Amino acid sequence: MSSDIAAITGEVLLRLDRGKYPIVCNISNRHIHLSEKDLGILFGSGYKLEKMRDLLQPGEFASTVTVDLQGPKGLIKKVRVLGPCRSQSQAEVSLTDTFTLGIKTEVRDSGDIAGSAGGRLIGPAGSVDISEGIIVARRHIHMTTAHARKFKLKDKQIVRVRTLPPRSVVFEDVLVRVNDNYALECHLDTDEANACSLKNGSYVYLS
Amino acid sequence: MSSDIAAITGEVLLRLDRGKYPIVCNISNRHIHLSEKDLGILFGSGYKLEKMRDLLQPGEFASTVTVDLQGPKGLIKKVRVLGPCRSQSQAEVSLTDTFTLGIKTEVRDSGDIAGSAGGRLIGPAGSVDISEGIIVARRHIHMTTAHARKFKLKDKQIVRVRTLPPRSVVFEDVLVRVNDNYALECHLDTDEANACSLKNGSYVYLS
Repeated sequence: MSSDIAAITGEVLLRLDRGKYPIVCNISNRHIHLSEKDLGILFGSGYKLEKMRDLLQPGEFASTVTVDLQGPKGLIKKVRVLGPCRSQSQAEVSLTDTFTLGIKTEVRDSGDIAGSAGGRLIGPAGSVDISEGIIVARRHIHMTTAHARKFKLKDKQIVRVRTLPPRSVVFEDVLVRVNDNYALECHLDTDEANACSLKNGSYVYLS
Repeated sequence: MSSDIAAITGEVLLRLDRGKYPIVCNISNRHIHLSEKDLGILFGSGYKLEKMRDLLQPGEFASTVTVDLQGPKGLIKKVRVLGPCRSQSQAEVSLTDTFTLGIKTEVRDSGDIAGSAGGRLIGPAGSVDISEGIIVARRHIHMTTAHARKFKLKDKQIVRVRTLPPRSVVFEDVLVRVNDNYALECHLDTDEANACSLKNGSYVYLS
């Protein structure tokens, strides 16, 4: 019994300690990562993405261009293309967007697209039908191994994140992603941010 | 110190006890309550709302008709009119909708519309400009005094509500509304429901 109490007390103290450090939270609006091949079809052979602005994660950027995303039920116009290109095209949308598009999809970790929903990507030079690649990305926190040590967390661990009042929320099922190329940053999508009136760049806390 | 521990233990036991009982949660999509006067302007003098289906709250119903809602930036078509009529017209939208409409609004308790955003309601027989009445409704739970006694809660108390996994969330800042005419029911809006992939009619728990 006393060892149970010690374990519970230890867990509470660990949570309180982790919860002291602010983590910047940015809101992922719907966006698309393109393969080099699909980029060429959508924007013309040899087209290179131009940077509009850097994202917080090193090397990642919002490009100057958008594509339209067509699902079986509806169209979403002007979905921002992020760079650099990836090995496979992937659109990350909110659950709200899936109702507009008319697709069914589970929440997935970014990159886990096998068997996910498909749709049509429409660019100024052509269009591409993807049989899979439209997902709702699981909420997550990027951090370096140094941050992970400080928080006593490991890659792929699941944590809880609290937002600030008013209208605060504790998000459970938040994935930790550890890599020394990352910046410390929590990513929520627009549904999650709008559910707690969170503004881009606000701080959130482990809970 | 021992009285502190007793108080904390009591609070924990109270929360655990409250958290045992499932509460049905329905999702409030954007909707409009109309005054008799505005109903006449939008649908024609003497028009009476017809029931499409009952809502869980006794006497409340979804009507057969919709109106369009115009804000300074954008239009939202086919917003469901709920009945019966109220003393003042009021549109309840999600924070996502406020960006579409181009309005700024705080989260408010239903009925608290003084100084809130305005817009244009467009019906088949005419339109009405409202100077206020468009709000994002605060998440809330309806309950009878008997439920309130069971949960040891009072009208207007603020509680936390947990949704079920996967993608679970603990919503803080949930308003308790107690009235013997109410049915036990939690209301979340579409942003809140889509942030935790909650389906209409799911159970949630006090936390």
